[in-house]
Amino acid sequence: MPIEITFTPNTLGVTDPKGFFAKGVSADVRRKGNDRLDTGIVFSKTPCAAAGVFTKNRVKAAPVLQCEGILNSSTAIHGIVANSGNANACTGEQGKVDAAQMADQAASACGVPGNSFLVCSTGRIGELLPMDRISPAIAAAGRAAQAGDTDGESFSNCILTSDTRKKTCTATFSVGGKTVTLAGSAKGAGMIQPDMATMLAFITTDIDAGEVALKPILQEAVKHTFNAITVDGDMSTNDTVLVLANGASGVRLDDSALEAFKEALFLICDNLADKIVADGERITKVVELLITGADTEKGAENIARAIGNSLLVKTSWYGNDPNWGRLMDALGYADSEFDPEKIDISYGDVPALVSGTPIPENKPQWKTVVSERRFTIHINTHAGDASYRLRASDLTEGYVDFNKSE
Amino acid sequence: MPIEITFTPNTLGVTDPKGFFAKGVSADVRRKGNDRLDTGIVFSKTPCAAAGVFTKNRVKAAPVLQCEGILNSSTAIHGIVANSGNANACTGEQGKVDAAQMADQAASACGVPGNSFLVCSTGRIGELLPMDRISPAIAAAGRAAQAGDTDGESFSNCILTSDTRKKTCTATFSVGGKTVTLAGSAKGAGMIQPDMATMLAFITTDIDAGEVALKPILQEAVKHTFNAITVDGDMSTNDTVLVLANGASGVRLDDSALEAFKEALFLICDNLADKIVADGERITKVVELLITGADTEKGAENIARAIGNSLLVKTSWYGNDPNWGRLMDALGYADSEFDPEKIDISYGDVPALVSGTPIPENKPQWKTVVSERRFTIHINTHAGDASYRLRASDLTEGYVDFNKSE
Repeated sequence: MPIEITFTPNTLGVTDPKGFFAKGVSADVRRKGNDRLDTGIVFSKTPCAAAGVFTKNRVKAAPVLQCEGILNSSTAIHGIVANSGNANACTGEQGKVDAAQMADQAASACGVPGNSFLVCSTGRIGELLPMDRISPAIAAAGRAAQAGDTDGESFSNCILTSDTRKKTCTATFSVGGKTVTLAGSAKGAGMIQPDMATMLAFITTDIDAGEVALKPILQEAVKHTFNAITVDGDMSTNDTVLVLANGASGVRLDDSALEAFKEALFLICDNLADKIVADGERITKVVELLITGADTEKGAENIARAIGNSLLVKTSWYGNDPNWGRLMDALGYADSEFDPEKIDISYGDVPALVSGTPIPENKPQWKTVVSERRFTIHINTHAGDASYRLRASDLTEGYVDFNKSE
Repeated sequence: MPIEITFTPNTLGVTDPKGFFAKGVSADVRRKGNDRLDTGIVFSKTPCAAAGVFTKNRVKAAPVLQCEGILNSSTAIHGIVANSGNANACTGEQGKVDAAQMADQAASACGVPGNSFLVCSTGRIGELLPMDRISPAIAAAGRAAQAGDTDGESFSNCILTSDTRKKTCTATFSVGGKTVTLAGSAKGAGMIQPDMATMLAFITTDIDAGEVALKPILQEAVKHTFNAITVDGDMSTNDTVLVLANGASGVRLDDSALEAFKEALFLICDNLADKIVADGERITKVVELLITGADTEKGAENIARAIGNSLLVKTSWYGNDPNWGRLMDALGYADSEFDPEKIDISYGDVPALVSGTPIPENKPQWKTVVSERRFTIHINTHAGDASYRLRASDLTEGYVDFNKSE
């Protein structure tokens, strides 16, 4: 019998699972002379199994390289130290030294061995971290977490850049009378002092899992959630999703819990990914592109990404304009095999094209669908049985204005 | 000894070579009740060798299919009939009938055999051509051209959509005391009643050439000119470049004229392509991206296109912001092999990054370069000896506003 999962959006986030502590503090990384939260720690006294998925960008920020190195060499992870306001990307050797130092300082403040902390940065690119400010902030956050602070709220806020709100959610399920909790805190596809679009997501859980088991489950969930969204089509140097599992629930990730855990992790990732699109910079629409009947899954993805990243399509959504001609144009240059005369397109449930032929009498209904803040476009290419779902935003004058200069 | 070529921008266009006649008239394709020029004919009494390069979009407009069919089956081309305001794309069987009818009507009006006219349309997608209006306009333009009208000006204007000005140029050179002329008229990457970005270019020449010789020369010229520009990254259903050669100069395209002809054709294509970027919708910058030292030519092109189509890069140009971090980010996700720590980037002649390390003391000079309307960004990845040049525009709030709705 399937295990019931309880899902709650907009929670405390990473401190909801048993045995996780967190604190976000201010280091004034941005040198604005204010006390905006920008540095934080997530900590578990019990060592965790951990897994990560990272940007495929060839230009990887120093903390990404640091995380990959730690995950390859250490099996006992105690936490994550993160900052916003500076991405520590394109910072050369000193950047690598700084990333390693952040991890060491966090471990030291929490009283755990070096090499047991993961590190993430997000924000401006090409400038060295202000370590003189960050180091004491790490020490303060680490002391608080070590003392048992469960201030998930401050941690979820300290990682934000141009996000307008924190992004958190929590899922629980029970196995043999014991409750397993998973929770996530993420930051979105935004810029800080307009530089890199950077997506970070941290997921904690008290299930008892080996890292070997965690990694493929995380990869599968990320593929259909965080990797199936687009705001502006730019892949950042810092994108990172991390999961830590400390075992405090007393439930083993074995066959009895596996399906429920996978489903709960998917729900967490899916909700955070949705929140990231919905809080994209100056967007007004969230559009679900559902491609079916495609030649291959890659072909379906290519179609969805061609449409979801087309400037002409995105601007038409912004204008409440159901411009199926622009969809057809993007379809036509997407790398996927199909016959243009077999294409079906519908806005919501309303057909716009059937077998490549427009249904103009439905135009008033398309217009109504596209005027909503959220809607679905369904495209069936009748070329096979593969499918792909992508969530995309529109493109607004506000986005251009927001990103046009420092 | 190389043959000297005389190049002149902003000429009459297609009627400059001997034996070419043209006329643009108004059919009110847009049904606006005005006399905007929108339908035209280019005509040569002497049959021409012809070659074409067409969109690679899988969704091809009816006139594109019509042209491909004619070029594959006929060796005696007498002209081109074109309209703006309606792209005759996604119009099913009736669209194909209409495209064939346009060609037949043009041939008939000019008193030449059917199947000797090429046909091009640009403008709104998904609506049938108003043939009741277009047919008499074709007849009028055909009669004028047949009677010897050399109104290249009206033809160059009738193909425009959201272009703000006509795009023409002419090149001449002499062989054995005889003058060869090449001329072109193009329309740009704009929308009409915001639909498809469509690029059309028509090149006439009075050299005596076989179509077998013309095609590879045209393909080579197009590759480095019309196919090396980007405004919004959307490839249209109608993009077409045609060349007609009627032999009226009395000069054969043989070894004595070949290099001069190639060079003159390149100059024509390059100037028209430049004019298209410079007249892109609501743009304020033309940026030449020069990628050198790349692993392969495809890799160099991938880098240039990733940068030239990045929303973050394009908005930063708009803001006069020399944001090399965004260049590095786009480099990082481009499909090309290189070591990020070997990258050189310069704005104009001013180094911004040398071997992956920023030169912040040059920042005031980068800012000056990026504040110009035209500038060059040179990137050397030190991974090989391949290169690619792409001309790209910025992205402005005006573009979003212009394209946001019907």
